[in-house]
Amino acid sequence: MSSTVQAAVPVQVHRTRLVSGVIRSDLNYSTILPRDYYVDEKIFEKEFEKVFSTQWTYVGHVSQVARVGDYFLDNIAGESIVVVRESADRISAFHNVCRHRGHHLCSSESGNVRRLTCPYHFWSYGLDGNLLNVPGSKDGANFDYNDWPLKRVNLEVFHGFIFACLSEQPPASLVEKFSAVSADLETVKTESLKEVGRESYEIHANWKTLLENYLECYHCQGSHPTLCQSMDLQAMFRGTDEWQEPYFTGKVPLRPGVKTVSMDGQLVSKPLGDLQKLDEVPEGFGTGFGIVPLLSRVLIHADHVVVHAMRPLDVGRVKWETRWYVGSDAVEGTDYRAANVAAVWSATNKEDAALCQGAYNGVRSRSFTPGPVDDSRESAIPAALRAYLELMQAD
Amino acid sequence: MSSTVQAAVPVQVHRTRLVSGVIRSDLNYSTILPRDYYVDEKIFEKEFEKVFSTQWTYVGHVSQVARVGDYFLDNIAGESIVVVRESADRISAFHNVCRHRGHHLCSSESGNVRRLTCPYHFWSYGLDGNLLNVPGSKDGANFDYNDWPLKRVNLEVFHGFIFACLSEQPPASLVEKFSAVSADLETVKTESLKEVGRESYEIHANWKTLLENYLECYHCQGSHPTLCQSMDLQAMFRGTDEWQEPYFTGKVPLRPGVKTVSMDGQLVSKPLGDLQKLDEVPEGFGTGFGIVPLLSRVLIHADHVVVHAMRPLDVGRVKWETRWYVGSDAVEGTDYRAANVAAVWSATNKEDAALCQGAYNGVRSRSFTPGPVDDSRESAIPAALRAYLELMQAD
Amino acid sequence: MSSTVQAAVPVQVHRTRLVSGVIRSDLNYSTILPRDYYVDEKIFEKEFEKVFSTQWTYVGHVSQVARVGDYFLDNIAGESIVVVRESADRISAFHNVCRHRGHHLCSSESGNVRRLTCPYHFWSYGLDGNLLNVPGSKDGANFDYNDWPLKRVNLEVFHGFIFACLSEQPPASLVEKFSAVSADLETVKTESLKEVGRESYEIHANWKTLLENYLECYHCQGSHPTLCQSMDLQAMFRGTDEWQEPYFTGKVPLRPGVKTVSMDGQLVSKPLGDLQKLDEVPEGFGTGFGIVPLLSRVLIHADHVVVHAMRPLDVGRVKWETRWYVGSDAVEGTDYRAANVAAVWSATNKEDAALCQGAYNGVRSRSFTPGPVDDSRESAIPAALRAYLELMQAD
Repeated sequence: MSSTVQAAVPVQVHRTRLVSGVIRSDLNYSTILPRDYYVDEKIFEKEFEKVFSTQWTYVGHVSQVARVGDYFLDNIAGESIVVVRESADRISAFHNVCRHRGHHLCSSESGNVRRLTCPYHFWSYGLDGNLLNVPGSKDGANFDYNDWPLKRVNLEVFHGFIFACLSEQPPASLVEKFSAVSADLETVKTESLKEVGRESYEIHANWKTLLENYLECYHCQGSHPTLCQSMDLQAMFRGTDEWQEPYFTGKVPLRPGVKTVSMDGQLVSKPLGDLQKLDEVPEGFGTGFGIVPLLSRVLIHADHVVVHAMRPLDVGRVKWETRWYVGSDAVEGTDYRAANVAAVWSATNKEDAALCQGAYNGVRSRSFTPGPVDDSRESAIPAALRAYLELMQAD
Repeated sequence: MSSTVQAAVPVQVHRTRLVSGVIRSDLNYSTILPRDYYVDEKIFEKEFEKVFSTQWTYVGHVSQVARVGDYFLDNIAGESIVVVRESADRISAFHNVCRHRGHHLCSSESGNVRRLTCPYHFWSYGLDGNLLNVPGSKDGANFDYNDWPLKRVNLEVFHGFIFACLSEQPPASLVEKFSAVSADLETVKTESLKEVGRESYEIHANWKTLLENYLECYHCQGSHPTLCQSMDLQAMFRGTDEWQEPYFTGKVPLRPGVKTVSMDGQLVSKPLGDLQKLDEVPEGFGTGFGIVPLLSRVLIHADHVVVHAMRPLDVGRVKWETRWYVGSDAVEGTDYRAANVAAVWSATNKEDAALCQGAYNGVRSRSFTPGPVDDSRESAIPAALRAYLELMQAD
Repeated sequence: MSSTVQAAVPVQVHRTRLVSGVIRSDLNYSTILPRDYYVDEKIFEKEFEKVFSTQWTYVGHVSQVARVGDYFLDNIAGESIVVVRESADRISAFHNVCRHRGHHLCSSESGNVRRLTCPYHFWSYGLDGNLLNVPGSKDGANFDYNDWPLKRVNLEVFHGFIFACLSEQPPASLVEKFSAVSADLETVKTESLKEVGRESYEIHANWKTLLENYLECYHCQGSHPTLCQSMDLQAMFRGTDEWQEPYFTGKVPLRPGVKTVSMDGQLVSKPLGDLQKLDEVPEGFGTGFGIVPLLSRVLIHADHVVVHAMRPLDVGRVKWETRWYVGSDAVEGTDYRAANVAAVWSATNKEDAALCQGAYNGVRSRSFTPGPVDDSRESAIPAALRAYLELMQAD
């Protein structure tokens, strides 16, 4: 008979640098947030107001609304919005909610319309959101049409990329925030792209677990063999360490001889914009920009563009979306094959989805306390979490 | 490069006539309830006590319990009840819960029993709910059998239609509330019906969104083409406007030449009750009655009866049930075909399920604020919501 | 026209002996807990801390970790733990959570490892839980490895059976609590078993409904015909009445001529341990022990062992696990057939799963009030609930 009673090692509860909204300075390491931030529904509810509604979030590209009346649906943290080309000069976004009794105006993911007409009682709105007709109730008879326009969502078009923000007070213009990359974006002409692929994963994890995963390349060597074939890992460590602000810029650093992020390092589409005019794509060309904490990330390579965005669903579920773009003049079959354009990140997304699920499984444990993160490889994490806490504490 | 920052139009927060339980009079339009009433689980919990438990709710027809010992199960807001014919003269309802350790007494949806016997420890109860036998514990040995009868649920049989109410204090008798239609019900002899069809939809919407949808025909022209073939829409607007009380009566008004609600306007079964004695069914014959806010609605046509009832499941889910009846002497194949009897409302239910889902999708949006409803077409909605708020505020 | 209004019998709200944590003495019967204890998520949350974390819970057998580095996963109330043989002399348990950013260390249900290595960033731990390597961060560079061992879970090996406890302060040793059965366990040599079957049911019921069901044999005659073929029911009533402490011992009493719990009363494997040395298995041989309120129950027969354990999932869901063992020297096909070993309890589990579901359906009813339980057949229930309330009230 063997009978052994083990004494439990007292659980070490390290105080973390980021605790309950207080940024601490008496620890010799950075860390992630306490468990509650990843599992508490009340915190998630507060995040809707303080974070998801206050940031610019990537929702699409101007190529999706080329003609007047073109629209597409997207959502920000569960809020359905309609992005529509109101005129040659203006793209607008509205809550997809009729002002009468709330029915969704549009149910198709995209289309072209002359008016936005509710299928319930056929109230119709102009492309500018103004109420134009209420069957059975003339303007002024029971109420003034002017009082009931669609509720607008803030929208900014930045070099062809469309960002939306739910709050009445949107943050500063992206033109200002991303001035550092404007010249590059003008070179590659990101207004002239077309979407050639889209992929989304519904992951059973808190959205911040995905954020943390995305912000460090410490896990890349062991888990992303395909990505590491083209990416210069040591340079990527330095790159992520530079992401110390909610608005950051920077490219995917490439290994020597690699021209783009692809399976073999060779271009997967024709060069973008003015790069076509050069004899050769410049060695290591790339640019990009991103926003945290609710991540929108635009990666621009010589021949294609990748955009990542997160869509929180509830405290323990998040949709991870990736979209691929090539130049609008590229021809499928001749200049590119969509599967090739998407190959590296498609493999990487699948790996990340599993890692984030595994990480969240542990973070959910009641025994979880945050550990030390490596300031030379994971420093973008505490930086983004600081930005997160500042938003959460804002009035 | 095109870069446009839109200013958000300040969101109009119209104060509504029905706000947080206060009925306002300083608005020139009626409206529905604020968003919380449709999404807040605490309000749903309160509704169980204040609304679902206090009303009469349709649960079935006397034809389901023709013989002594016949029983069927139903539920009111998740509470399983057994409706059983206790004697030739009396139909009773009990909670389907053994007094010992709570096991459900009956699991089959219907049947015929001499006693109600729990399958767990075989405690048995008479059809009157009295505890008759406890294996291993004689009456008085450990406790008195008299102290442990089944818990009764209030029940009223009104012209053959069975209604139940969970509360100890049931509301006034339906005989009193619906005296206006008693003569008609005696004519068509609604005690002598048989059920020929039943259909239920589980809809992801708050039950009040279904209520509001049912109480107005503003949406019918655009969404219910089949129903509108037989129904006189303008008269229906007037009809719903008359539903200003929690107990209302009224029929489906028919278009000229239409004899019943059916695909071709012709009868789909033999005339009911004393209508058979007439040479011809009276032009536009019809009657009916209903209860709100938790809707039970009985529609009586010359040849068949339709009953609608709601079964709230949780704050965002509700079961919508429809049952069809013909005269008990009608013969399948000769006098009626069940599919024909159900055809119009079967199509209409499907349309309504989609509309209610779409409306709830928008009402759930955090941007939702209630809009103006049309007093000439939707006035039954604020009337029902007033009745709802009165129940919610009652002691 | 028949119209009857029934008066509701006033609902009897018997005060129970166990109400809201107070044990009452002014009732002439015992009973179960008020409804809230079975449906309230806050109470379930408190149970995690006060009950599930403080008891010894059965997690497996030493045969699962025969060699150094052998491990298996299990969980206690949703907490994933790794049970691993650290050395020839010691079996340990750890939270399956990396100290870095929480990723689960192991995902396979069992295996053999030299180190516990996190698949996220490849932090690796020894079998004793000590942090051995952090890629890119030498010991002491950013933090001391010594500060970040895996979090230990208390573990006791009792005659080959492995029990775990999440709390820092484990309860008293099982050697002490179960000294009454030590001699019998040495006779049958329960260290030398092998698992030949495992079955689990996810039941939509509160875990205490399963507990109550397990603690009485009042329901056996009507519901467990197979079990009653070998079990002496009257003796079982007396047996369960003796279970008045959180730690109880006792066997399944057998009917005359029955040698073990099996379909025909005959042995289903070779006799265990030293019983093999006897000419014949002693008439009515059996022993066992159990722990409540979160049930772990070990049943030892002459030829096989059955273990039951509960895994609460949420307030309304629980996993019921049964494992079957025979002697480690028994040969499949010759000495036993796994299906025969499992036959009786496999049938009984299925019956119990349905009963517990049915009982919980009624306990969930808002009309439910606890009824009288029979002190001569169900007295182990109030005893276990007293133990439960004492844990819930402990500091």
